[in-house]
Amino acid sequence: MSALSDLETWEPRYASRAARMQASEIRDLLSIVEKPGVISFAGGIPDPALFPLDDIRAAYQAVLASDDRANRAMQYSASEGDPDLRDWIVGYMAGKGVDCTRENILITNGSQQGLEFLGKLFLSPYDTALVGAPTYLGALQAFSAYEPVYDELRLDDTNRTALSYQDAASEAGGALKFSYVVSDFSNPTGETLSLAARTHLLRLAGELDIPIIEDNPYSDLRYDGEPVPTIQSLNLQACGSINGSRVIYCGSFSKVFTPGLRVGWICASEKIISRLILIKQASDLNSSAINQAVALHLAERCYDQQISKGRASYRLKRDAMLKALSAHMPKGASWTKPEGGLFVWLTLPEGFDGADLLQKSIAGFGVAFVPGRAFYADGGGKNTLRLSFSLPDIENIETGIRRLGALIGEVATPTP
Amino acid sequence: MSALSDLETWEPRYASRAARMQASEIRDLLSIVEKPGVISFAGGIPDPALFPLDDIRAAYQAVLASDDRANRAMQYSASEGDPDLRDWIVGYMAGKGVDCTRENILITNGSQQGLEFLGKLFLSPYDTALVGAPTYLGALQAFSAYEPVYDELRLDDTNRTALSYQDAASEAGGALKFSYVVSDFSNPTGETLSLAARTHLLRLAGELDIPIIEDNPYSDLRYDGEPVPTIQSLNLQACGSINGSRVIYCGSFSKVFTPGLRVGWICASEKIISRLILIKQASDLNSSAINQAVALHLAERCYDQQISKGRASYRLKRDAMLKALSAHMPKGASWTKPEGGLFVWLTLPEGFDGADLLQKSIAGFGVAFVPGRAFYADGGGKNTLRLSFSLPDIENIETGIRRLGALIGEVATPTP
Repeated sequence: MSALSDLETWEPRYASRAARMQASEIRDLLSIVEKPGVISFAGGIPDPALFPLDDIRAAYQAVLASDDRANRAMQYSASEGDPDLRDWIVGYMAGKGVDCTRENILITNGSQQGLEFLGKLFLSPYDTALVGAPTYLGALQAFSAYEPVYDELRLDDTNRTALSYQDAASEAGGALKFSYVVSDFSNPTGETLSLAARTHLLRLAGELDIPIIEDNPYSDLRYDGEPVPTIQSLNLQACGSINGSRVIYCGSFSKVFTPGLRVGWICASEKIISRLILIKQASDLNSSAINQAVALHLAERCYDQQISKGRASYRLKRDAMLKALSAHMPKGASWTKPEGGLFVWLTLPEGFDGADLLQKSIAGFGVAFVPGRAFYADGGGKNTLRLSFSLPDIENIETGIRRLGALIGEVATPTP
Repeated sequence: MSALSDLETWEPRYASRAARMQASEIRDLLSIVEKPGVISFAGGIPDPALFPLDDIRAAYQAVLASDDRANRAMQYSASEGDPDLRDWIVGYMAGKGVDCTRENILITNGSQQGLEFLGKLFLSPYDTALVGAPTYLGALQAFSAYEPVYDELRLDDTNRTALSYQDAASEAGGALKFSYVVSDFSNPTGETLSLAARTHLLRLAGELDIPIIEDNPYSDLRYDGEPVPTIQSLNLQACGSINGSRVIYCGSFSKVFTPGLRVGWICASEKIISRLILIKQASDLNSSAINQAVALHLAERCYDQQISKGRASYRLKRDAMLKALSAHMPKGASWTKPEGGLFVWLTLPEGFDGADLLQKSIAGFGVAFVPGRAFYADGGGKNTLRLSFSLPDIENIETGIRRLGALIGEVATPTP
């Protein structure tokens, strides 16, 4: 009786949500792409060549220099986060058109933890979350643990009325809880929501009276064009105060500095932040105090310089990828032309299967990417691929896209 | 329509679990004890005087020394955690009588995140979790987000049969999902589960065929007496393999090294770990790579030395608190005599109210503690207090307990 009577039967012991948290076939495929020699457009992770290592070393040294400060950096700390770091973020958010105070800021372990907390705060089983198709895979993973239903947020389709969303949510057996978007240089498509789409979203969310989660980790990595005002800033212009805002903004230091610190934040009305602090406390008490102190040290000294470095380097890589796509993609393929961020989204003719293509590509062409289907809540997007240009160097971008073009040209389009 | 129509009505937008995640009256009380001059027995946090600051400085310097290693420490990393750190923990667990491999280890942000993940994995609303009365407040906070029912785990009461637990769980409308204990020098009581109690628990969990969560962050801080085998090791003796074990062990570097790294772990069967890796991924992708590397550096170089330092220092503080309690507590008060850990549990005659006492104590006596009620899932324990001896120095322990004894003597016992 000491061992579990039948280990195969752990399954029935799990919460019902565990059924929504399965390992994905795509993730299994991607686990084999770390092989040397593979050119990977899969990751979507920042280029370590851009990490400000000397500044990082200096930051850790400074934070640990005096015993008093080192002891604070090594102790438990406030669940809401370091007050000085939150104050720096208040200044940063002002630059995004958002007037707020530190009471509006919660520090999270990267923006991923922000998404997890928001799922936890809002979603009961059968509630509806409005998400794009495609949308950020990590958001789907964070939300799915809370067993929602997804409905497709369409911002270019004026035929989809507020009432139609509401009816669908009622039919699904729960309430409409929030809409979720990556506003700038979205993961996975690289596209930026236009001002018109943002205005449409605010109007729709107003009609539905639901919050908008604005996930914006890539915002500072703009290579061309003019910034579009954040959705939160547009909302503040209308409602007057962050504490009356329906927009919940998720930010991160992972793309501009380094993901190793695991420091991100949520900016929202005090009422919501006070709820999220309780969730943070129950989840992991607080984010690492030393990493928050280091993030602040870096933010105060070299945020702008890091943005410039990132923009200059990624711009060249994006240009190289777009040029290679033009040169090597067969007719019928189309792709996004992002003004920033880390991703290009490739759409192939109907009939292509990204997962099948990935297998062939790794086996015979040494090129990896993410099949687009992973980013669809409804399993669509079979004929799409996400290509990240952040990690490979320019020569490998050219080589990789050439090989990928050759593969796509070779694969006979199956009958749809 | 741009602002939420009525901000007071955020409440109905939240998931049903939000009702279980309220700010506690006790936490509000404790937020005012950080005033200078207050002697605090409230915290339960490690003494920063014991942080190995020079080793910590050397560890960060070593991890950041070469660009290659620094880049890895600053990048995204595996959700399951650093393989070398997991290997070190495998060796550590061997010392706890647990034969396992790195596939049995998941790195978490302190053991608190482990508890949160286990709540998420196992609990659906109305499921039952068996917990002690009292038990660790943070475990109740982590689990309560998943809306369980609590039943009291009694290991000294042989009249409570497996059937009685099962009947109560069915009546509550869900399934019995797990039992939870802090095995050594428990938070909040400081008591250690006897071998007989561990054997009883294993038999009971076997009859109920449920997992046991063994939370054991204080285990290495033993000041007297002989170690009792971990529940996981006792289970392995019977079932033969970690992969057949029903015990899920949560460990932490927070008490022996520093909480600032936010590094803990779960050791369990591979089947459970593989599920928890998906939860980790959805929750915050991975724990800080640099903090994991620093934890490993410290663990390899000074784990034993830290244990010795901690034991020597906390033993004196425990002795001072027990001596002061004997000298200053009025008749009718009783307290635990812990062999390790950070806590003493004080029980006053029926009719005393710990929360009321805390208010009077802070206002007139400059002494803080945690009213015991916070550690009861059912709201019991009104006449109990948790006293931590880890943070004040020996003189303040004597002064604080003397003042507390005077207060308790002054307060007329209200009619029960």
